Amino acid sequence: MHSNIKITYPASEKIVVPGKIHNIRVAMRRILLTDTVEFVNGERRVTPNSPVTVYDTSGPYSDPEVEIDLKKGLPRLREPWIIERGDVEQLPEISSAYGRMRAEDPSLGHLRFQHICLPYRARAGKEITQMYYARQGIITPEMEYVAIRENMMNEELGIQSPITPEFVRQEIAAGRAIIPANINHPEAEPMIIGPAFLVKLNTNIGNSALSSGIDEEVEKAVWSCKWGGDTLMDLSTGANIHETREWIIRNCPVPVGTVPIYQALEKVDGRVGDLTWEIYRDTLIEQCEQGVDYFTIHAGVLQAHEPLLKNRLTGIVSRGGSILAQWCKMHKQENFLYTHFDEICEILKAYDVAVSLGDGMRPGSVHDANDALQFAELSVLGELTEKAWEHNVQVIIEGPGHVPMNKIQENMELQKKVCHGAPFYTLGPLTTDIAPGYDHIASAIGAAQIAWLGTAMICYVTPKEHLGLPNKEDVRNGVIAYKIAAHAADLAKGHPGAQIRDNALSKARFDFRWKDQFNLSLDPERALEYYKEGSHSDEGYCTMCGPNFCAMKLTRELTDCLHSN
Amino acid sequence: MHSNIKITYPASEKIVVPGKIHNIRVAMRRILLTDTVEFVNGERRVTPNSPVTVYDTSGPYSDPEVEIDLKKGLPRLREPWIIERGDVEQLPEISSAYGRMRAEDPSLGHLRFQHICLPYRARAGKEITQMYYARQGIITPEMEYVAIRENMMNEELGIQSPITPEFVRQEIAAGRAIIPANINHPEAEPMIIGPAFLVKLNTNIGNSALSSGIDEEVEKAVWSCKWGGDTLMDLSTGANIHETREWIIRNCPVPVGTVPIYQALEKVDGRVGDLTWEIYRDTLIEQCEQGVDYFTIHAGVLQAHEPLLKNRLTGIVSRGGSILAQWCKMHKQENFLYTHFDEICEILKAYDVAVSLGDGMRPGSVHDANDALQFAELSVLGELTEKAWEHNVQVIIEGPGHVPMNKIQENMELQKKVCHGAPFYTLGPLTTDIAPGYDHIASAIGAAQIAWLGTAMICYVTPKEHLGLPNKEDVRNGVIAYKIAAHAADLAKGHPGAQIRDNALSKARFDFRWKDQFNLSLDPERALEYYKEGSHSDEGYCTMCGPNFCAMKLTRELTDCLHSN
Repeated sequence: MHSNIKITYPASEKIVVPGKIHNIRVAMRRILLTDTVEFVNGERRVTPNSPVTVYDTSGPYSDPEVEIDLKKGLPRLREPWIIERGDVEQLPEISSAYGRMRAEDPSLGHLRFQHICLPYRARAGKEITQMYYARQGIITPEMEYVAIRENMMNEELGIQSPITPEFVRQEIAAGRAIIPANINHPEAEPMIIGPAFLVKLNTNIGNSALSSGIDEEVEKAVWSCKWGGDTLMDLSTGANIHETREWIIRNCPVPVGTVPIYQALEKVDGRVGDLTWEIYRDTLIEQCEQGVDYFTIHAGVLQAHEPLLKNRLTGIVSRGGSILAQWCKMHKQENFLYTHFDEICEILKAYDVAVSLGDGMRPGSVHDANDALQFAELSVLGELTEKAWEHNVQVIIEGPGHVPMNKIQENMELQKKVCHGAPFYTLGPLTTDIAPGYDHIASAIGAAQIAWLGTAMICYVTPKEHLGLPNKEDVRNGVIAYKIAAHAADLAKGHPGAQIRDNALSKARFDFRWKDQFNLSLDPERALEYYKEGSHSDEGYCTMCGPNFCAMKLTRELTDCLHSN
Repeated sequence: MHSNIKITYPASEKIVVPGKIHNIRVAMRRILLTDTVEFVNGERRVTPNSPVTVYDTSGPYSDPEVEIDLKKGLPRLREPWIIERGDVEQLPEISSAYGRMRAEDPSLGHLRFQHICLPYRARAGKEITQMYYARQGIITPEMEYVAIRENMMNEELGIQSPITPEFVRQEIAAGRAIIPANINHPEAEPMIIGPAFLVKLNTNIGNSALSSGIDEEVEKAVWSCKWGGDTLMDLSTGANIHETREWIIRNCPVPVGTVPIYQALEKVDGRVGDLTWEIYRDTLIEQCEQGVDYFTIHAGVLQAHEPLLKNRLTGIVSRGGSILAQWCKMHKQENFLYTHFDEICEILKAYDVAVSLGDGMRPGSVHDANDALQFAELSVLGELTEKAWEHNVQVIIEGPGHVPMNKIQENMELQKKVCHGAPFYTLGPLTTDIAPGYDHIASAIGAAQIAWLGTAMICYVTPKEHLGLPNKEDVRNGVIAYKIAAHAADLAKGHPGAQIRDNALSKARFDFRWKDQFNLSLDPERALEYYKEGSHSDEGYCTMCGPNFCAMKLTRELTDCLHSN
């Protein structure tokens, strides 16, 4: 385990914007630019360019004033806010039987994160979710934090943004947005998921049996944050899931999600028939107390849906969905996640864990898109959304999958209607099946489109999708492809201020300020690397077109010519 | 120069489908699949899978029966069809002064393609364009060829396709589609560009001063055809453009386009002010007689547009556009491509060269998208379209550039209306400016969308866009990104039979027929390479999820379970 990891971005500094309601400091990244140098009528004219502030998911890793020690975990940013509310208590011990067992197992000593705090939980009779507060008219520090975070440069540019702390509160109260913020993950910087906000992107990491270890997973988590991942799902299915998760959460500046059924299945050695509500329940509590911010729960998979499977080309492609469908079949009983959904909400609300209603029946091929099975499950998710909201549990809805472009809009519209405006969180969708090795592209096309139509968060796909587990380079390629999709959607939606960065980069391009162009890009290192592969001139053109064929150089001459008239 | 290059695809064979009207043989690629092996109630059941026929751009390079010799050029497929029509003559010598000069220069001997045929041209008083024939009610071999080529598997699957030879004729007669087919490039296999047909993709190659040489350009051309490029633009601006082009055309199985102003400018040593109609005219004739199939001509750049430039962030980003704007400014005269447009059409129609009306004022940034300047030029292109059609010259219209998603539809609708249904041919569009190093993705998002809305051909963008000249790997990545965009659009448009390949690949995936999955993909080599990076099992699951978490394996068990009920 490296005890020290830092994230750096070229020509960038960490800035903080203070709150006005609460004593909070919202971190952002400011990219510094060089001056524009022009020759007008033979005279050298120098004009400075304002720095550009951008949304920053890298947390304390890019803060030169914070000393990172992975063994101790990140600073616990939100802990004072949580304690100040006076509605939580620190437990004397871990509540889950499994959590206690792992904590007491001496053979795990070398794997264990050492500085574990005892978990927090809502006091008896207290409600502590962001949705509850919002419905009470309370603007929490988390809400003000995200309002400031979403706006970036608007204040300095005098843009009147509709995104105010009060607007955030209203969106959360209405269920149209969530702030995934488990009280046991105070290290995470608050972020918001909802169609009225910047489009967010989720990345998946996780070891499967025999593949990567704890070190590598933590490194991947930080790596994902570096490139712009807004949330992170730990989909580990191998050994030591519990310990791996602890390391990740303690060192993760963004919300962490999991699919608890994966670990529950590990606990019964992969025998689906042996899964029980009691094992699952203990797993939920174990993970709530570790600090998981949102759970994918496949509670919409019902016995009644099974006959619809026969029309499918690729059956069930969701791991969780297939596990629960098989469990129902074996026991001839209804899905226990559905029958126990109220109890699930009771557990989640005590820690403010959000529920991400899983799409166990998502289409795994263009052929199966928008079929009766997919939409039957979606309507159950709508029913469960209302139930969760009765408990003030924050909800997002997972979506497909493989969907051709002409069927994307129906997905979005139906989801919005059936799920009462709860935020949509989609995997891609992949717009064709024939692109193995390039599925980050096949799916970024669909992701950009569905995000524009209103999807709040898109789950990335890497080039290794369908072929193998992603390595670090795959994660980077997947994240950047999805940053592009998310940003393209933000531009199309007219998110206030989204275009500032595009304009600054394009101006740098037109000015031949190459370094500014790279520094403003989503992946400055890659841009510089590609640029260096060619031999370039700094004299107002590059070798792409040569001196006679540079359109921008010719335009400059044309414009200067105009100036001199 | 390698004298022998072959293209191979795994588990594929070349097939030919004969014409019914003409004595033609249309080449396609057939991908052979393995059997599905299932265990149902403990019994082994083997079911064969039908081969899948796909559109093939690789020409004779993938035909084991053709011996390729780059020094001799490809077989002259269309020459007998052209001669049989009896309306062309073979000239006693090259018509252009420049062409003759190069042919006679002894110092170029080592660069020169040796087996140059004398050029063909329409006999005096004869019209020979595909548009002319179509308007006369004639179905040419080229038209029947593309009708067969577009349908692929439909006949064997009994799909009634609307794409018949007569339909092709109607679309060409109406100007809604073109077959770029210079009589001096008989080596190219006919292909059609129009919104009613499969979406096509163009790739750009070309050396600039001091970069790649002839060998490399020919190799890149073949490489582009291997991955699926439908047409190829040679944008060379360096030395020996004439000789490079000859090598490329003689060995290129797809239509070749150029931007003649580039070479014209080379002829005056890069001095824009020295450009004249006479030099340009000689360049057109030179290239018509070499066999260029379509010319980008920036005839829509007008003096009157100049004042609109001042509102732009990134000025003019089209090389051709900037050259002509500067020429107009220097001479205080109207663009000579506009004033001589009728003469241009007279030249082009004698060889059946199509015109691609260039968008010299395309936006180079999100900021400049859909501005007054862009649309002012577009309306001139509409006027020129009608003029070209009076000469029976086939027309396509070039489009942007950088356009955010919410402004794409306006582009498509306006182009369709203003240009009277002439096919749209767009560069991207890039949906954000902040993705240098990943602009193939930023633009594939826009390309897929605009192609779905009706754009007939999309011009690829490589990861090196804005940063440097693409190498072979960049070309591959750019082509595949655009194959994905084009195919996603074909699916969304409901092109008959487009989904057959997706279904076959998804079925292979569900069956764990890994090799079939790879062989059916757009880039089988990449898929296999990624797969091999992981350690995989052949026992009905892979290491991505491990044996307990494979949804498809679990679904299979569920389904078999169903079978046994």
